[in-house]
Amino acid sequence: MNIDKNQIAEHNQQLEAVQNRRFNQLAEDLPNAETIVQKLVDFQVAIPSWALGTGGTRFGRFSGGGEPRNLEEKIADIGLLHALNRSSGAISLHIPWDIPEDYAAIRTLASQYDLSFDAMNSNTFQDQQGQALSYKFGSMQHVDKAVRKQAVDHNIDVIKHGIELGSKSLTVWLADGSSFPGQLNFRRAFQNTLESLQEVYAALPEDWKIFVEYKAFEPNFYSTTVGDWGQSLLYASKLGDKAYTLVDLGHHLPNANIEQIVSLLLMEGKLGGFHFNDSKYGDDDLTTGSIKPYQLFLIFSELVEGMDNRGMDHTKDLGWMIDASHNLKDPLEDLLQSVEAILIAYAQALLVDRAALTEAQSANDVVRAQEILQHAFRTDVRPLVAEARKRTGAALNPVQLFRELGVRSQLIKERGAKTVATGL
Amino acid sequence: MNIDKNQIAEHNQQLEAVQNRRFNQLAEDLPNAETIVQKLVDFQVAIPSWALGTGGTRFGRFSGGGEPRNLEEKIADIGLLHALNRSSGAISLHIPWDIPEDYAAIRTLASQYDLSFDAMNSNTFQDQQGQALSYKFGSMQHVDKAVRKQAVDHNIDVIKHGIELGSKSLTVWLADGSSFPGQLNFRRAFQNTLESLQEVYAALPEDWKIFVEYKAFEPNFYSTTVGDWGQSLLYASKLGDKAYTLVDLGHHLPNANIEQIVSLLLMEGKLGGFHFNDSKYGDDDLTTGSIKPYQLFLIFSELVEGMDNRGMDHTKDLGWMIDASHNLKDPLEDLLQSVEAILIAYAQALLVDRAALTEAQSANDVVRAQEILQHAFRTDVRPLVAEARKRTGAALNPVQLFRELGVRSQLIKERGAKTVATGL
Amino acid sequence: MNIDKNQIAEHNQQLEAVQNRRFNQLAEDLPNAETIVQKLVDFQVAIPSWALGTGGTRFGRFSGGGEPRNLEEKIADIGLLHALNRSSGAISLHIPWDIPEDYAAIRTLASQYDLSFDAMNSNTFQDQQGQALSYKFGSMQHVDKAVRKQAVDHNIDVIKHGIELGSKSLTVWLADGSSFPGQLNFRRAFQNTLESLQEVYAALPEDWKIFVEYKAFEPNFYSTTVGDWGQSLLYASKLGDKAYTLVDLGHHLPNANIEQIVSLLLMEGKLGGFHFNDSKYGDDDLTTGSIKPYQLFLIFSELVEGMDNRGMDHTKDLGWMIDASHNLKDPLEDLLQSVEAILIAYAQALLVDRAALTEAQSANDVVRAQEILQHAFRTDVRPLVAEARKRTGAALNPVQLFRELGVRSQLIKERGAKTVATGL
Amino acid sequence: MNIDKNQIAEHNQQLEAVQNRRFNQLAEDLPNAETIVQKLVDFQVAIPSWALGTGGTRFGRFSGGGEPRNLEEKIADIGLLHALNRSSGAISLHIPWDIPEDYAAIRTLASQYDLSFDAMNSNTFQDQQGQALSYKFGSMQHVDKAVRKQAVDHNIDVIKHGIELGSKSLTVWLADGSSFPGQLNFRRAFQNTLESLQEVYAALPEDWKIFVEYKAFEPNFYSTTVGDWGQSLLYASKLGDKAYTLVDLGHHLPNANIEQIVSLLLMEGKLGGFHFNDSKYGDDDLTTGSIKPYQLFLIFSELVEGMDNRGMDHTKDLGWMIDASHNLKDPLEDLLQSVEAILIAYAQALLVDRAALTEAQSANDVVRAQEILQHAFRTDVRPLVAEARKRTGAALNPVQLFRELGVRSQLIKERGAKTVATGL
Repeated sequence: MNIDKNQIAEHNQQLEAVQNRRFNQLAEDLPNAETIVQKLVDFQVAIPSWALGTGGTRFGRFSGGGEPRNLEEKIADIGLLHALNRSSGAISLHIPWDIPEDYAAIRTLASQYDLSFDAMNSNTFQDQQGQALSYKFGSMQHVDKAVRKQAVDHNIDVIKHGIELGSKSLTVWLADGSSFPGQLNFRRAFQNTLESLQEVYAALPEDWKIFVEYKAFEPNFYSTTVGDWGQSLLYASKLGDKAYTLVDLGHHLPNANIEQIVSLLLMEGKLGGFHFNDSKYGDDDLTTGSIKPYQLFLIFSELVEGMDNRGMDHTKDLGWMIDASHNLKDPLEDLLQSVEAILIAYAQALLVDRAALTEAQSANDVVRAQEILQHAFRTDVRPLVAEARKRTGAALNPVQLFRELGVRSQLIKERGAKTVATGL
Repeated sequence: MNIDKNQIAEHNQQLEAVQNRRFNQLAEDLPNAETIVQKLVDFQVAIPSWALGTGGTRFGRFSGGGEPRNLEEKIADIGLLHALNRSSGAISLHIPWDIPEDYAAIRTLASQYDLSFDAMNSNTFQDQQGQALSYKFGSMQHVDKAVRKQAVDHNIDVIKHGIELGSKSLTVWLADGSSFPGQLNFRRAFQNTLESLQEVYAALPEDWKIFVEYKAFEPNFYSTTVGDWGQSLLYASKLGDKAYTLVDLGHHLPNANIEQIVSLLLMEGKLGGFHFNDSKYGDDDLTTGSIKPYQLFLIFSELVEGMDNRGMDHTKDLGWMIDASHNLKDPLEDLLQSVEAILIAYAQALLVDRAALTEAQSANDVVRAQEILQHAFRTDVRPLVAEARKRTGAALNPVQLFRELGVRSQLIKERGAKTVATGL
Repeated sequence: MNIDKNQIAEHNQQLEAVQNRRFNQLAEDLPNAETIVQKLVDFQVAIPSWALGTGGTRFGRFSGGGEPRNLEEKIADIGLLHALNRSSGAISLHIPWDIPEDYAAIRTLASQYDLSFDAMNSNTFQDQQGQALSYKFGSMQHVDKAVRKQAVDHNIDVIKHGIELGSKSLTVWLADGSSFPGQLNFRRAFQNTLESLQEVYAALPEDWKIFVEYKAFEPNFYSTTVGDWGQSLLYASKLGDKAYTLVDLGHHLPNANIEQIVSLLLMEGKLGGFHFNDSKYGDDDLTTGSIKPYQLFLIFSELVEGMDNRGMDHTKDLGWMIDASHNLKDPLEDLLQSVEAILIAYAQALLVDRAALTEAQSANDVVRAQEILQHAFRTDVRPLVAEARKRTGAALNPVQLFRELGVRSQLIKERGAKTVATGL
Repeated sequence: MNIDKNQIAEHNQQLEAVQNRRFNQLAEDLPNAETIVQKLVDFQVAIPSWALGTGGTRFGRFSGGGEPRNLEEKIADIGLLHALNRSSGAISLHIPWDIPEDYAAIRTLASQYDLSFDAMNSNTFQDQQGQALSYKFGSMQHVDKAVRKQAVDHNIDVIKHGIELGSKSLTVWLADGSSFPGQLNFRRAFQNTLESLQEVYAALPEDWKIFVEYKAFEPNFYSTTVGDWGQSLLYASKLGDKAYTLVDLGHHLPNANIEQIVSLLLMEGKLGGFHFNDSKYGDDDLTTGSIKPYQLFLIFSELVEGMDNRGMDHTKDLGWMIDASHNLKDPLEDLLQSVEAILIAYAQALLVDRAALTEAQSANDVVRAQEILQHAFRTDVRPLVAEARKRTGAALNPVQLFRELGVRSQLIKERGAKTVATGL
């Protein structure tokens, strides 16, 4: 199924009057409304190929219908999203779930939907059918050099697929760790992992980056070998200039101040990528912005401040990606909500009066500093986000149009009610 | 120092045009704007007498200046707040910090500022000069009946003071608990506490309520004898119809779902009062709404839904109070920010389309349910809150006016730069 | 495969001299060593039928070999455990994973291994093949009465199976809850759940109990409808005398004081059952005693104190069960380690000098109270636990004998390397 | 008051027979008992000067009696401890609470008690009487260079005091941080702090070390400028070879794996010092080993393994110190319990069969690895710790002797019942 430009135009026509009024009303109070709209237009969030199907927990998975059955259908799904919001113009592939059979065909298909290939993702946290050695006790940390080599070789393979598709980065998430005291020698696990990462690093093309993702716990429940930003930064620093830390919002201990981590990683020039989702307890992988929207705003506020401070390009110099699990919602609707929440937080962050904030900070005027941040957060920026969509030919209300067009039932009709997309 | 009606009028005149425009713009989209404004007008939050001075931590206290030196000045401070926002029309006293010498004079003074006396607070977590027995090992839980009796008698005293002032409720927060395994027999501590509370309960006037506050930890660091809502509800149920649970936002374990607790306590008819503040780690006692404003909204959403379901009066049937510690901010500015955040959350909760939400819930339409809640939260309701202030003769921007009038420097001039208000 | 008495005798003969020496040395210092040994002999922990296979996380499952392929083989596995330690004399079945085809045959088989049937477990957190209605949005809480009825009927079925096997209790763990704000009306979810539980309760035989298990989060990540002990107690109180709360060690928010919960539930006469495991982050389901052995001891200390206070029988009046997930270890070895840790904690709890502790508590002698508890905990009670095994014909070192006999390779030979037991 | 050698000898005589029996029994099973005893003899834990008085929380402080009124009496108190256990042979001073008036006299006094001067501690988290500039908004992070300079100068002063006393290290704990979003620019706070630390570093004598302590939260409740080990390591790395990270057990987010942090810091050659205490919720500062003794053992296990791996001297190459708050217990008894718990954990760690553990790890034998660790932990090593005391002329049971001698009543007689030691 494809969404037609006319369908969008028709939808927008109905909502346009109200949108115009609201945008104009808001613009009266915001001198830089136009600048913000332009930045929103430019901002793109990659969609991971595994987020297009129903996710689950260890207790079960309640499949929806019409899930994509192969890479082509995954690309089509992201094409639908991008048609609706014009902010999801990239796909992040996961190997081995998405190995392309014909690179050229896949590239062509993606370009038809105006999609580029974002970071490639490797998988050494599961055993694949026919795999020689098991990752039960880790991959890059493994006590057995042969297992480490298998994991390294897999990552090098992933890079090769990525080169063919035009990707420029590799995200390495390692589930490596331990579930019981004594299971691991922490130091040797670190050193094995470092050595493995160095071998992958050596295979990186000149213009590629490698993102070392950290996670506090799960699926290991005692220690994780890349467990926090401090460990990730140690690896990235030892690896070299092409290595960066990747922050996933759900991968922290309770109460962690993620925005401070973001600021410090930017200070060190070592923040590379970002995985959006939301959570209350652990790596809950809920819709971005559904639980802690103020934290999301504060993080974006640091991202904007820190990137601007280094003269970084918001749209290119960090890898932005959603990484969630859609257990209860229609995955495509969930992704539309997530992208919307990200754009709202980004717009709010762009609204922050930086000069006034710096002044308040310099005067230790804590009350004023809070007023400045909360003014930006409390402002209803949805008309700005919608305006960006309007100008790019996206739908004013993507979720509403998705439903009006009956996209899901159409997909079920095309693909069946019992398809199961690869993923978790 | 008093704030003059003319000073407020002048301030409002300058901001009125913009306020009118914004309110009208918002009202275009909100059919029930007027109803909400009226509810905001009626909503009053009590200010605790101990929150008017600088707070501290065990590591130190950095006093500000111009703090109230006695009960009269505390009332005057709340009078200032109420003049500025017309939403702080009650004071919550703490005994022995605020024992009135002349009830009639204090009542008259309060009524001059249009203030009523909210819940009375007892203190059995500190030893007062000349106190016969120590609370080092607890008060109502104490192994020694004489200590328990002292604590009971103190609470009965507090009730007597309250009767004289026109208060109708007693809040009992017990620091009782233990810091080490083995220190307490949990069951006996519970039973001693229950027996003590029953003695206090017996002394309650017919039209009074007693609020049993719970707290997960601090100042005891192993167990607390009224440690969570389950324990508080057990006490309140065993005590009788006049006993209720009081929820303080900062008194939970990490990640607790407070809004669900609120809903269930309302269901049981046992929610009695509410202490507002915000926190990231523990009982941080920060400005309400400064850390987790979405959670605050969700809690208000349950409060509104649950109270309406029982036909409760939003303004009278629960005790609303701020309970924060102002370590870094001017206490009065902090309180103005807190009240503003509370009113914003309340307004957003009133905005929720309940019928649509119920419909979405009945259809398990999770996406739609989220859209409905977030629509209310994302709406910039500040013009509604300001409108309520405008109509009651309060300042359109209380913090701004507080600063323009130089209230704090005036207070320092009147009271001195080194005064220290009673409190923590 | 069966373990022969002679194999055990031979194993014990080799270790007996050392065991005798250690036991006698310890008994010199412990006047009540014999009493404790007898209580250890009597103590039995039920093994859940689903814990005999490899567990997993949502990221994957790394199967071992020789897993039981049916109920008969599960019973055989527990028979092996019981032969090795004589402390695992009960099985807890899970329906629909363990529906017996021939009750009499199953009963006979179990009795051959000297096993009884502990609490029955229902499953309304997954959809079974061919199930009419989905539990995607809950079961007993569901907005649709038909789904609730399906869940109720299933539980009544489970009771019927249990009656045939001689079980006397039903454990209800509900995954019901929500992952997003707004998804549920908490009050209606509670009331629907209560109504459903009441229907199940009505079908309980006179001499049965129902255990209402609570859990803070997972698989739902915003709210859980039986989320904490307070909620469970509310349900159990409203249901009636046959309803109890069940505590699972991994089902709490971070830092919860579980031992206090245990004490209070015993005080209320509402503690019904216990699920053992251990965890660092959430419901990690690790080997009991592998992460927080002191907490396990403190919990047992409350269990012993609280049961003795009510004159309860340690062996019969609470349901004891392991509930863990064996992702990395051989499930049978893991279970042997768990039972050992439970018996150690129980023995330590029995060692506590209750009179001295009460005296220290009455004197607020915190230092002494800690010394008393830690003396019990620091004592090496393994000779007591081993002595209990020796006297019942179990192996002095069950894990060691399990390995010496090559039990796992034997099971793989009999059942194959790729079997997968039903479970998570 | 001093404790006489004869008093100790008499006490030991009474307990010696039992001790000898238990030690011999244990030594039968432990080939390296003698080596362990010798290491226990050599191990010394520094006592902070502020831990000798009653501590408190922000809610109050319940003083005991006989607290030391000056530095001389603090030294005398530690002298008492050291006489009792011969394991507390160092004092860690806090400036300005402990500024010596006569260095030579203080040195002589300390040497009479056989005490050395461990790390010096600075204080820039409180305002001292007469201090020119306030630390309300931080010290080394402060936006105002003059405040930063004041903090730097204070630290240089502290070094000077330390030089006079023979100390060789400076511990810098900064309370710097923020309580509200927006209050700080995280990057500038970091850079200001780094610059300040560099100025202090420049003043360090050649043979000194500086320890950069981190803490997750409190007294600031939103961010801390040296908030976790990653940040501390960044500072220490940028400062140079004399800079190290200091780990305080209570300064982490919930569920943190501290033992892994210890291992990695040792790997990097950047672990400098250790503060012992215990906690359940935050920086509760409870008696070491009173809440999570297994975690303490696991940490010691990593300390021993990691130090041995680098050929470090257990007694000299790390700074060992207790840092607790004695709110409920007699401070001296509490410290005796803490030292005992530390020695027990150290002895258990020395018991671990490293070769077997490495073998189990190399084989991914998780069950065996756990058995090895838990065997060491479950062994009752108290006879080893007591033996070390016996051989050094310390008391076999220090707490018991402390009580038998009536030390506290003697101190109250000498110093009065209402003294208050400097500290928190």
